Amino acid sequence: MIDEHEHPATLRPSQSSSQKTEFDFIDSLRQRVASTSDSLIAGIGDDAAVFRGSAGKETVITADLLVEDIDFRRTTTPPYLLGHKALAVSLSDIAAMGARPLWSLISIGVPEDVWQTDFVERLYDGLLNLANRYGVQLIGGDTSRTHENIVIDSVVMGECAAGTAVMRSGAGAGDQIFVTGSLGAAAAGLRLIERGAHLAEQNLGDEDSQKLDHILLRQLRPEPRVGWGIVLGEERLATAMIDLSDGLSSDLNRLCTAGSVGALIDSALLPIDNYVAEMCGRRALDPLQLALHGGEDFELLFTVRSKDVPRLPRRVDGVEIKRIGEITAAHEGVKISEGTRIWDLRPGGWKHF
Amino acid sequence: MIDEHEHPATLRPSQSSSQKTEFDFIDSLRQRVASTSDSLIAGIGDDAAVFRGSAGKETVITADLLVEDIDFRRTTTPPYLLGHKALAVSLSDIAAMGARPLWSLISIGVPEDVWQTDFVERLYDGLLNLANRYGVQLIGGDTSRTHENIVIDSVVMGECAAGTAVMRSGAGAGDQIFVTGSLGAAAAGLRLIERGAHLAEQNLGDEDSQKLDHILLRQLRPEPRVGWGIVLGEERLATAMIDLSDGLSSDLNRLCTAGSVGALIDSALLPIDNYVAEMCGRRALDPLQLALHGGEDFELLFTVRSKDVPRLPRRVDGVEIKRIGEITAAHEGVKISEGTRIWDLRPGGWKHF
Repeated sequence: MIDEHEHPATLRPSQSSSQKTEFDFIDSLRQRVASTSDSLIAGIGDDAAVFRGSAGKETVITADLLVEDIDFRRTTTPPYLLGHKALAVSLSDIAAMGARPLWSLISIGVPEDVWQTDFVERLYDGLLNLANRYGVQLIGGDTSRTHENIVIDSVVMGECAAGTAVMRSGAGAGDQIFVTGSLGAAAAGLRLIERGAHLAEQNLGDEDSQKLDHILLRQLRPEPRVGWGIVLGEERLATAMIDLSDGLSSDLNRLCTAGSVGALIDSALLPIDNYVAEMCGRRALDPLQLALHGGEDFELLFTVRSKDVPRLPRRVDGVEIKRIGEITAAHEGVKISEGTRIWDLRPGGWKHF
Repeated sequence: MIDEHEHPATLRPSQSSSQKTEFDFIDSLRQRVASTSDSLIAGIGDDAAVFRGSAGKETVITADLLVEDIDFRRTTTPPYLLGHKALAVSLSDIAAMGARPLWSLISIGVPEDVWQTDFVERLYDGLLNLANRYGVQLIGGDTSRTHENIVIDSVVMGECAAGTAVMRSGAGAGDQIFVTGSLGAAAAGLRLIERGAHLAEQNLGDEDSQKLDHILLRQLRPEPRVGWGIVLGEERLATAMIDLSDGLSSDLNRLCTAGSVGALIDSALLPIDNYVAEMCGRRALDPLQLALHGGEDFELLFTVRSKDVPRLPRRVDGVEIKRIGEITAAHEGVKISEGTRIWDLRPGGWKHF
């Protein structure tokens, strides 16, 4: 729980003055996230949080650990966006189960110098802003000091009707393969950040900086496809689903392995981000490679029985979907066509044979 | 989830060879924790875990973040015991709600050099051994690299009958105050470890090293009072409860603040650990100070209406309880008697007035 526990009998010297600040922060956080939900029996401030599940529902839970200098850099990630992303990656996992997110626990470790700034408050600003958009309630977590690096463990719970959770394993031969939104921009954004690009301090209105910000924000502020996840689960439209965290090639292979099926996708059908082609051309990046292997798009990759395809909504929350291929028999393998040629689609790589 | 996600589009160079080892480890972990529970729909290996709650029950959840060199030292904490403790502190929180623990998610970040040893496997050995003792199932988590320090976020969920979760806030004037087990040994153990004491490599049979090991193990291998938590919750015996993580003085004050009550405890009634007095005398440590302010005993501090005291079992899982005082009106404050004298009992300090 986010409470006054500080693992007291620790090996470090007492930090009573800064501990007080921490208690103040937790108190302010507790007031800030005061619940309006009848289902929440106890939130932040007791030994554990308590909530009531809905009748006939199952609970879905995921955890994502983000480590500074492994998963993000403090210098290139504004704290508001880091808070957003920490929650977004877990919301994306819940969406990939076809479930509705409800509760969040955030454990965060920060070094003393970071604690003394408004970094943590800004981080929670971004996190709570995203949580509020989807009606997700922060009910707990933990805080600790670290020596150098920031760590965040983001836990999100949700619900789905009993028996409707969408597993990775449910795809059958003949199912159509879909993906939400667009591909490649998150990976393009990472590469541009590595080369020194940063968000415009203020919107200068010029078109190029707007396009650059769009790409950078796909990396820094991923939008979990919460609405699509709920619709695909509740309407029992998806036979299998996974979120694109590692890249289409890896995640499609995972879905096919789990379901003991193959797949054939068409490179011409991939919804590569509009700006990626344009911005990448000038920077010697290959949009197709980014879309296939780049990762962190946090789009949903899902399969639908052919007979159910007409039932699919065209868009949810303004986000469209695109059919990119079809599930095949396991012995056919996981493949991608490019015009008349067909290649093996290997995780993280595209091997010609 | 503990899965193949590795936050791929990271800023670090690819580590494909060691990543493979990590996938292998997760696969082996998945097989090792194969479920026998009808309530578990999906465990490790999908985007999220899915489980079915029991009718008429509420879900209780807690998270505890342990950071190397803040909460433990790698050199003095064998990995098996670190795994035990990471789970134990969260089980203790669930017990303090009067709930039965059921599910666990462990997120762990380790540096490359640790990953290359059997440290993580030994850590899960200790963790799963404790989990199995209480029928707790590991259903997820996350793994990540760190640059230097090990971090573990331990999330445990449990259940209690609707409306029976024992909050910190439920104590009323006249309620009797109880504590499970014994006090002071965990803090004594920490201080001895800081002075260079370590567990005997093998049991030499001599009495002094057995006593020392007992004290060190209270620090290194805390035993969560799971059985007592379940009994006190299910039998509706406790009006308020908290686990002693920060020390009796801090945690009793917390319980009193939450319930807007006061308390008077009797120092002569405190169940100070048998060996602490003996071992501490020789080492200039004050057993009463350790029992009051030491922390990490992970005993349960709870209150019981006087009329319900006869219903209390004498022991659960071999652990006894001790009445240490009585809840008073808020304006009476939180106090401790020593013979005929009465002092204010302040959190972490014992101020004479």
